[in-house]
Amino acid sequence: MIDPSRIRALAFDVFGTVVDWRSSIIREGAAWSRDYGIEADWAAFADAWRGLYQPALSKVRSGELPWTRLDDLHRMALDQILPQFGLAHLDREARRRINTVWHRLDPWPDSVAGLTRLKARHIVAPVSNGHVALIVAMAKRAGLPWDVVLGAEVAQAYKPDPAVYLTAADMLGVAAGEMMMVAAHNGDLAAARSLGLRTAFVRRPTEWGPGQTIDLEAEPGADLAVESIEELADRLNC
Amino acid sequence: MIDPSRIRALAFDVFGTVVDWRSSIIREGAAWSRDYGIEADWAAFADAWRGLYQPALSKVRSGELPWTRLDDLHRMALDQILPQFGLAHLDREARRRINTVWHRLDPWPDSVAGLTRLKARHIVAPVSNGHVALIVAMAKRAGLPWDVVLGAEVAQAYKPDPAVYLTAADMLGVAAGEMMMVAAHNGDLAAARSLGLRTAFVRRPTEWGPGQTIDLEAEPGADLAVESIEELADRLNC
Repeated sequence: MIDPSRIRALAFDVFGTVVDWRSSIIREGAAWSRDYGIEADWAAFADAWRGLYQPALSKVRSGELPWTRLDDLHRMALDQILPQFGLAHLDREARRRINTVWHRLDPWPDSVAGLTRLKARHIVAPVSNGHVALIVAMAKRAGLPWDVVLGAEVAQAYKPDPAVYLTAADMLGVAAGEMMMVAAHNGDLAAARSLGLRTAFVRRPTEWGPGQTIDLEAEPGADLAVESIEELADRLNC
Repeated sequence: MIDPSRIRALAFDVFGTVVDWRSSIIREGAAWSRDYGIEADWAAFADAWRGLYQPALSKVRSGELPWTRLDDLHRMALDQILPQFGLAHLDREARRRINTVWHRLDPWPDSVAGLTRLKARHIVAPVSNGHVALIVAMAKRAGLPWDVVLGAEVAQAYKPDPAVYLTAADMLGVAAGEMMMVAAHNGDLAAARSLGLRTAFVRRPTEWGPGQTIDLEAEPGADLAVESIEELADRLNC
């Protein structure tokens, strides 16, 4: 059993765990359709774009690319998929606007309330692959009450590189076992657990839409498995 | 004249500008007197301790010391001054407790209200020589509503090294001229200004107690000079 008083910091994955990237892109896609006179299956567009995420991070992890912020990786992926959706004619300004949708993602309905409760007793910090400017812009728009922004950029490495988790714990002055990684992705949690962090799985069964097939349940080893960040607050007595 | 809409981020010096280190140490000193059965002139003690601050930072700036966090620099200075105050007998646990007083500094009366107002329209970030763990602990205790914690540790350099200011602007994705440095210290503002940042001087004429002789007025060149962070919010139409 988890002793909540031993958890000093909660480290949150953000894309998919705290915010609903897919619905947010679909929602904003309707505005792009109107403003640019274009049509697209924005759900398929969101999936294709996000589908290039891990391959892009892999290029940085392997050293094929030097350290590159997510805005730039998102832009490379965007430029790659636009022709597939018949949108190769979109100009620089339109691409800039579309690319920054990742700064404007909406939280899941339980995120702000859950984080606010957890913040009263614990440090709450994003430990995301999103860079600082993106995470700050998102937080200000969505009202996410982070205490501090940690993650890939301050470690100059992408999850699941151990440096990301360990730099976060080190900067907060907490031992690995005093930090709990919170994510909707078993791979993220497995990496954190292998370093001694506690882990909480938040089930987000529609992150990838109604046909989602991955990360539907917590894998064995998670300290907690919850349906929402509010339930996490319940479980940690906040 | 400053156009408030062009200021995207406000970068705050913390010790002296946002929190009142001297009164806080004197206040906590009364508890140390009681708990350890000791007596000292805690005002003189606070001044002596803080007096070793710039010399300690200089050792890191010059390369005499490698990158060292403020907790460790504070501790070296504490060990140095304790004998002068007849307190050389204090043990390791007492020294640890006294040293972490810097995590428990109280804000000036206008700080929380002013930051809260400014946060509604601008990014508010500490750009302090304090390390992340210290600044986060202080903020949670005092209710300082930072959007993100930047400063010396993420730049691995101490102000007034240009890297501290420029890393903060870079991580926030803002141009130097879109960031305003806010400090009660003319030297901090001069360094920021030389890099193209806007600057606001907050007058804290009792930071060093009733006999303060430095930083009583803004030097020429500051974009704004105010008596409090609330007045800064007024001046920026927040």
